[in-house]
Amino acid sequence: MEIQSFNPPRRILMGPGPTDVPPRVLAALSRPTIGHLDPLFVKMMDELKSLLKYTFQTSSDYTMAVSAPGSAGMEACFVNLVEPGEKVIVCRNGVFGERMRENVMRCGGETIIVDDPWGRAVTPEKLEAALKAHPDTKIVAFVHAETSTGALSDAKTLCAIAKKYGCLTIVDTVTSLGGVEVQVDGWQMDAVYSGSQKCLSCVPGLSPVTFGKAAVEKIKQRKSPVQSWFLDQSLVMSYWSGEGKRAYHHTAPVNALYALHEALLLVQQETLEHVWLRHKTQHLNLRAGLEELGFEFIVPESERLPQLNTVYIPEGKDDVAVRSFLLQNYNLEIGAGLGAFAGKAWRIGLMGYGARNENVAVCLHALAKALKN
Amino acid sequence: MEIQSFNPPRRILMGPGPTDVPPRVLAALSRPTIGHLDPLFVKMMDELKSLLKYTFQTSSDYTMAVSAPGSAGMEACFVNLVEPGEKVIVCRNGVFGERMRENVMRCGGETIIVDDPWGRAVTPEKLEAALKAHPDTKIVAFVHAETSTGALSDAKTLCAIAKKYGCLTIVDTVTSLGGVEVQVDGWQMDAVYSGSQKCLSCVPGLSPVTFGKAAVEKIKQRKSPVQSWFLDQSLVMSYWSGEGKRAYHHTAPVNALYALHEALLLVQQETLEHVWLRHKTQHLNLRAGLEELGFEFIVPESERLPQLNTVYIPEGKDDVAVRSFLLQNYNLEIGAGLGAFAGKAWRIGLMGYGARNENVAVCLHALAKALKN
Repeated sequence: MEIQSFNPPRRILMGPGPTDVPPRVLAALSRPTIGHLDPLFVKMMDELKSLLKYTFQTSSDYTMAVSAPGSAGMEACFVNLVEPGEKVIVCRNGVFGERMRENVMRCGGETIIVDDPWGRAVTPEKLEAALKAHPDTKIVAFVHAETSTGALSDAKTLCAIAKKYGCLTIVDTVTSLGGVEVQVDGWQMDAVYSGSQKCLSCVPGLSPVTFGKAAVEKIKQRKSPVQSWFLDQSLVMSYWSGEGKRAYHHTAPVNALYALHEALLLVQQETLEHVWLRHKTQHLNLRAGLEELGFEFIVPESERLPQLNTVYIPEGKDDVAVRSFLLQNYNLEIGAGLGAFAGKAWRIGLMGYGARNENVAVCLHALAKALKN
Repeated sequence: MEIQSFNPPRRILMGPGPTDVPPRVLAALSRPTIGHLDPLFVKMMDELKSLLKYTFQTSSDYTMAVSAPGSAGMEACFVNLVEPGEKVIVCRNGVFGERMRENVMRCGGETIIVDDPWGRAVTPEKLEAALKAHPDTKIVAFVHAETSTGALSDAKTLCAIAKKYGCLTIVDTVTSLGGVEVQVDGWQMDAVYSGSQKCLSCVPGLSPVTFGKAAVEKIKQRKSPVQSWFLDQSLVMSYWSGEGKRAYHHTAPVNALYALHEALLLVQQETLEHVWLRHKTQHLNLRAGLEELGFEFIVPESERLPQLNTVYIPEGKDDVAVRSFLLQNYNLEIGAGLGAFAGKAWRIGLMGYGARNENVAVCLHALAKALKN
């Protein structure tokens, strides 16, 4: 076959991510590549760090973007904080809680699972009971916004409980950051990771992470080396640190970082408060339309993510056929169900730049057509 | 401080990477983001795989791009192939051989070091002696083109020796791929990684990797789980495999993969043979000019990388001052010395799109001016 340059169509991305990327971010992405130690690039990284700190609502300088997708950000938190033999409580209410368990296992840690049903938030009382039963637990890990189900857990309460029992927390904010309130310092979160391609509306491939004081202290006092050289945050920080000379660790993904800088600048210019409000408003618009079409939400209202709407596939409708119809006729992508919800649910994202009137309009109109087929 | 959109100047990148990115690749990078499971994206990935196979000169379908920089590609090879307690010979003649040793250590392997001086190729006889002394060695690892020194080792001979002693090979081709001949199948290489931002002239952030039959067999027969979930190639391959349905592993860096597709298409259109010849020709052009200016090469001619020219800093010249002069007056970046060569050498890259007349001309003219200062 003769290969040609790839020219993708303009899709409307309303799945669980990647999401629509605003033109300003794509423009930033394709600016000329400069060296990863160029003084101008280093200055851009300082700005990027301050934008990340604003977005995470933290004052910690141990804040950066891992040069790889959210899964690597997750792994960065676990390999740096978990030492072999340590007990970690993982709250599991979807795919990404299960992935956390995998991470603990591969770090040689011992996992205590706190299970909640798919589509529901983590139950704080269950976490507290597990902490009482396992007083030697070192770390509590949970997913703030489960991308596989659309459920939002109460991060503030879960972190407060973990602190009460002297534990560090690892929190997945891949789908929550920039979509709903996240207060890293205010809620006493210790190690937090996210992804560039959800509510931040940047291209996929980067994972913002931040470590608070207690987490940094734990990293400094490790007895064993971090099992990943690439994700060893003590080494990475010698490149991301603003103090003195930056030490080469690996070649930064220069252009992707331009894009993240621009995406976070958009968040800062809009303000976080307005960003959260916009997601809420568009969720209400979409919800009204979906309910009119007869859709049923999986997650109860009080635990529902505005930016990720999980609904049951109406009886008699073919999952793949409908999604193909939307893609072929409207360039509209919605998400399939994942794990326990495969074939049973659709995940409709309203993330970042995607959370706007035009997208809700196309989605409701196209879904109505699809259901009539 | 009020943060503005970042508008970098157009630099001329003649360091050890990142290198100049051609306009076609930057244009591909900023095309509209589509879903990582979109049928059109999956087709693009199939093409990308076939372009990677051509570039590596391999028929192995276990070929893909790791969604992270070259250091993660290195780690992907080590964590998948090395099991705790196994003996690994690492040939070390620069920074990246040392990084390999770090990787073996963090995998729980036992390292036997074969040292060669910085700035020289790996000595095949030393490798053979180490294999004789350690007949229980499982893996031989070496760097084909040492980015820290500009030395090229004889990969064909080193792999043949490793095979003779029943070992698998892990080969770093970060700086060699697309600059000098690399024959993955022809030279019996087992696990090979590279980087997007050197002679392939793509943006930084991706690491092409390939695993041959024997390596895949070893991965399948592992007793212990791969310590990295993100880099577990058995899982990653369920997404990159062309057979049947693609399983979600992590969100692919969609736009970066567009760029790699375009960069490799340029290589295919030019042909590898011409690409190698162009690097050689431009090296000769640059060498003639540098020698005229009185520069002395660190690496002997027969072991020298055409795409990375390491020269001693002339006596009495200030490393940082000269490099700043070049950057400020000509937007020209050349590389500083690394490790043992810090402050003593410059590394002048002629990689990929950077290996052309215009760049050699600017570099020689600007260096002449800088030395007269």
